[in-house]
Amino acid sequence: MKAELITIGDEILIGQIVDTNSTWISRKLIDLGIDIWQIRSISDKKEDIINAIRSTKADLVIITGGLGPTSDDLTKHTLAEYFNSKLVLNNEVLAHIEQLLVGRGVVVNDMNREQALLPDNAEFLENISGTAAGMWFEKDNKHFISLPGVPFEMKGIMRNEVIPRLIERFNTSAILYRTIMTQGLPESMLAMKIKSWEEQLPNEIKLAYLPRPGIVRLRLTAEGDDKRILVKIIEKEIKKLYQIIPQYIYAFEDIPLEKVVADLLIEQGLTVSTAESCTGGQISSMLTSISGSSAYYHGSIISYSNSIKNKYLEVPLEVLIEEGAVSKKVVEQMSKVIREKLTTNLSIAVSGIAGPDGGTKDKPVGTVWISVSSDNKTVSKKFLFGEDRGRNITRASLSALNMLRLFILNKI
Amino acid sequence: MKAELITIGDEILIGQIVDTNSTWISRKLIDLGIDIWQIRSISDKKEDIINAIRSTKADLVIITGGLGPTSDDLTKHTLAEYFNSKLVLNNEVLAHIEQLLVGRGVVVNDMNREQALLPDNAEFLENISGTAAGMWFEKDNKHFISLPGVPFEMKGIMRNEVIPRLIERFNTSAILYRTIMTQGLPESMLAMKIKSWEEQLPNEIKLAYLPRPGIVRLRLTAEGDDKRILVKIIEKEIKKLYQIIPQYIYAFEDIPLEKVVADLLIEQGLTVSTAESCTGGQISSMLTSISGSSAYYHGSIISYSNSIKNKYLEVPLEVLIEEGAVSKKVVEQMSKVIREKLTTNLSIAVSGIAGPDGGTKDKPVGTVWISVSSDNKTVSKKFLFGEDRGRNITRASLSALNMLRLFILNKI
Repeated sequence: MKAELITIGDEILIGQIVDTNSTWISRKLIDLGIDIWQIRSISDKKEDIINAIRSTKADLVIITGGLGPTSDDLTKHTLAEYFNSKLVLNNEVLAHIEQLLVGRGVVVNDMNREQALLPDNAEFLENISGTAAGMWFEKDNKHFISLPGVPFEMKGIMRNEVIPRLIERFNTSAILYRTIMTQGLPESMLAMKIKSWEEQLPNEIKLAYLPRPGIVRLRLTAEGDDKRILVKIIEKEIKKLYQIIPQYIYAFEDIPLEKVVADLLIEQGLTVSTAESCTGGQISSMLTSISGSSAYYHGSIISYSNSIKNKYLEVPLEVLIEEGAVSKKVVEQMSKVIREKLTTNLSIAVSGIAGPDGGTKDKPVGTVWISVSSDNKTVSKKFLFGEDRGRNITRASLSALNMLRLFILNKI
Repeated sequence: MKAELITIGDEILIGQIVDTNSTWISRKLIDLGIDIWQIRSISDKKEDIINAIRSTKADLVIITGGLGPTSDDLTKHTLAEYFNSKLVLNNEVLAHIEQLLVGRGVVVNDMNREQALLPDNAEFLENISGTAAGMWFEKDNKHFISLPGVPFEMKGIMRNEVIPRLIERFNTSAILYRTIMTQGLPESMLAMKIKSWEEQLPNEIKLAYLPRPGIVRLRLTAEGDDKRILVKIIEKEIKKLYQIIPQYIYAFEDIPLEKVVADLLIEQGLTVSTAESCTGGQISSMLTSISGSSAYYHGSIISYSNSIKNKYLEVPLEVLIEEGAVSKKVVEQMSKVIREKLTTNLSIAVSGIAGPDGGTKDKPVGTVWISVSSDNKTVSKKFLFGEDRGRNITRASLSALNMLRLFILNKI
């Protein structure tokens, strides 16, 4: 079974709002094993609405928007015309509208009463929190569901009316999704590393690469008749994948790396501080974006200038001169001193050249040294990222957090 | 001229990510006076891609996604087949890919090299920040543009390659857009404050409120026949607006507040440091996101715990106990000490309750004290933001930067 989601209204087309309704609905349908064939946003013009429903290749079409009481809301009349319906007064809906509006202190007018006129050949879907009822049309074995665009009302009708009917009426096939989060390998290098694994994947499983700066998500989709078998197949493949790239996988669901690190710190009762140069506070900002971060995070010194590295992170001037600020010795000293000063179990130190200026032949833009330490162990690593300042800062921050994760897990 | 936006890839269809690319592109096209006919998300299957481009009723189709190096990226081959292209090696692109990957320390492999094969009958659109080039096909007076789905790369190609060509090739009518950036007033309060100005706007001018956390952009659109007259009309209205809300407007074009602050600091030869608590490094991170920030930014102490506020920012323990960490006295001391320790002309200090925990009756979640100081002046202000942690951090950071801006301009 394949579904299409159609959003009616100009506010998405002109970029005023982001289409979150479709995201919500598609997740619900996917959970029921219904594939989404297409999602589209169209204008509220009659011809565009008819073009959209006529051209769909889906068996189930969920249309949101255009059911309000004002003159630019054309969905109901357009659908009634398309499905050759007659609009008849639904007394149940009228009573509900009157009760709802009176409760809000609104005087019921003709525009509101018009909303109680419903197509005679559509199933009516009750909207307990609004005045626009939902409608379910069926034609040539295709199902068309029209819902209001207000997210709160749409979700109520989906939960109370649509989803129970979908479960009851359609024998849905099983689809499973799993997302594996990786950090530390660019997409093409990751693809090379897992090439032979990818090639041996059983036919039921599809793989997609979803990159973001510093992160590549791997999405596995398994499709078949029996959900229990699919779970086994997909878990087996994930295990194999983990054996190939254990240090790069930080989660088996789509969550931010800082959340994984935060959970790990809390679980092990550890605290952390940071001494940042080129990342300028981003690691600290990521660590404190998680609720309850004061349990594991104490603070940071952002030492953008050499004099601060010297004065407050006790990096000797001769080391700064001889080795340069972007060097192993400097980050190791930063890491040691911040941990001792802020009395944390662990610390991260970063120094690098974010760019676009400051690069040299030996240390081009994108060169970053990261050190993670505890009182009995220090691990330092040199990275070479790219040329874009913003991406370098993000990649350095994510690499540092992944190093901290592996450090806590004793894997580096 | 009508456009359609097509997003290729399963991640939107299964509800894993929200389609923000389309929102961004549609705003850019609307700015150029190009109407959006439809936005759709489709799978990365060949038949669905072909169905989508064949069924479009738009004159301009912008397709994002599916241009990566891996086997699930089918867009290029599908388009080449549809437009009867031959794929030929583009040496310029190959050189760029090699340079980019070598710069990142990545070994160039066959998958990467394959990305330098481009359709012989498409215009090539340079992607300076990635390996997947954009393509511009033309057929029967319709234009098809294929771009990578990674937002950063897509935006770069749109800005550098697509928009200039669209302006050159299609822009006819006189439309002017101006964006006014405001900080410090929520949308509804701003709307109340400028209500009478809005009501007297001439017919040629349309106003739109575009809010983001902590920021409201006001977009003025003027449409008419004579561009020179429109410029005069719009400038006159902007002057009137500025007289109503001078302290809230920080720019007359869509640029980040941190850029405005950075320019001001550089212009006046001033330096700044921060002492942050609830913002956790975000202000520092924003200040250092701008290239060349070492000219004005020295460093920060992020004092998440009271002991760090006491030990390194010299806030007396009795003040922390009597007044609480979120108080005027504490932020003023933090501001003074960080400025002296890091020897900067100016400093920002912030302490607040980001939430969701830590609120009390007197100091609910969202309470934030901010202080900005120089060696002869200190300005402190208490804010009450909302309940959402992430938004509180963002709003506090933006409010602090706007206070710094007004402080430098001697307006507070």
